[in-house]
Amino acid sequence: MERKLTAILCADVFGYSRLMGEHEEATLRTLTSYRRLIDGLVHHHRGRFVNSAGDSVVAEFASVVDAVQCAVVIQTTLRAENANLPPDQRMEFRIGVNLGDVMVEGEQIYGDGVNVAARLESLADPGGICVSGTVCEHLGNRLALSYEDLGEQSVTSIAKPVRVFRVLPDTRAAEATAAGTKAQ
Amino acid sequence: MERKLTAILCADVFGYSRLMGEHEEATLRTLTSYRRLIDGLVHHHRGRFVNSAGDSVVAEFASVVDAVQCAVVIQTTLRAENANLPPDQRMEFRIGVNLGDVMVEGEQIYGDGVNVAARLESLADPGGICVSGTVCEHLGNRLALSYEDLGEQSVTSIAKPVRVFRVLPDTRAAEATAAGTKAQ
Repeated sequence: MERKLTAILCADVFGYSRLMGEHEEATLRTLTSYRRLIDGLVHHHRGRFVNSAGDSVVAEFASVVDAVQCAVVIQTTLRAENANLPPDQRMEFRIGVNLGDVMVEGEQIYGDGVNVAARLESLADPGGICVSGTVCEHLGNRLALSYEDLGEQSVTSIAKPVRVFRVLPDTRAAEATAAGTKAQ
Repeated sequence: MERKLTAILCADVFGYSRLMGEHEEATLRTLTSYRRLIDGLVHHHRGRFVNSAGDSVVAEFASVVDAVQCAVVIQTTLRAENANLPPDQRMEFRIGVNLGDVMVEGEQIYGDGVNVAARLESLADPGGICVSGTVCEHLGNRLALSYEDLGEQSVTSIAKPVRVFRVLPDTRAAEATAAGTKAQ
């Protein structure tokens, strides 16, 4: 069994079914356009596209710094793109980034590490990013970001809970720091 | 925007995170082996593999009869395969089949029709199959199957609820019919 340590980025669209239900063709046009942007940004940050199904995207990176930096740039880019859309057609992704020792099978990666990244993504706000404690540790202070500690969160049927940190957007970093949230 | 009417089969592994958490490498070996079986059966029933991410598989068929027949054979085949595994390593798929007018983008399909298939899958028992009312109507009596009517079920943010039928395994068809369940 081939294994490797890799930084996994999982993204999906918040309220995808609702968007599809309300504006089917416009939603697919936006999804296709945003997917192209995301693919380009992953490539630019030395990442590799792993798979996509519907509204979900999985990518991997040899560096946690690259992975989180890419996540931040994806969210900044899509925020700017969304400003051009009618409010009810805006498409926001949630992103989770984890570091894990995963199994490799052809072009695909599998294992707890991937499942935890998907769980982190589900805990993120629309347009936001959640990372695991191990990602935070390996980042150190290499990126000018602040984090809010969401504590230990259980992951379906994975025995050990995962420490989760929310990446604070620039505009909120100062307020949270002022309010006593742990800034790293 | 290219569109087409197609029968969509969505499958995923029941308790995938738990299996990965408990027996990581054995789970991936089983998943890889079962995915190969499923791909072969989809092809055999004139279906087309659409995408796969982690434990999920999406396939499409030009005929609802082929799609549901394929779902039944997948479950029968995997039940036989599972008998060779230790009970705590058995891998059961849930399958949903829907018929919908979907949007086509390259090799991918999108739209409510796909989202409803995924919702049907989530309502299926481990090792079981759920189909939509429209699939039942188009099947008529072409397959020797019985169904249990689960009534109308809401699908996240799709305005109209979807009528859901559970395909009864052979062994349960007789009992359910005896108990007054609608057999078609």
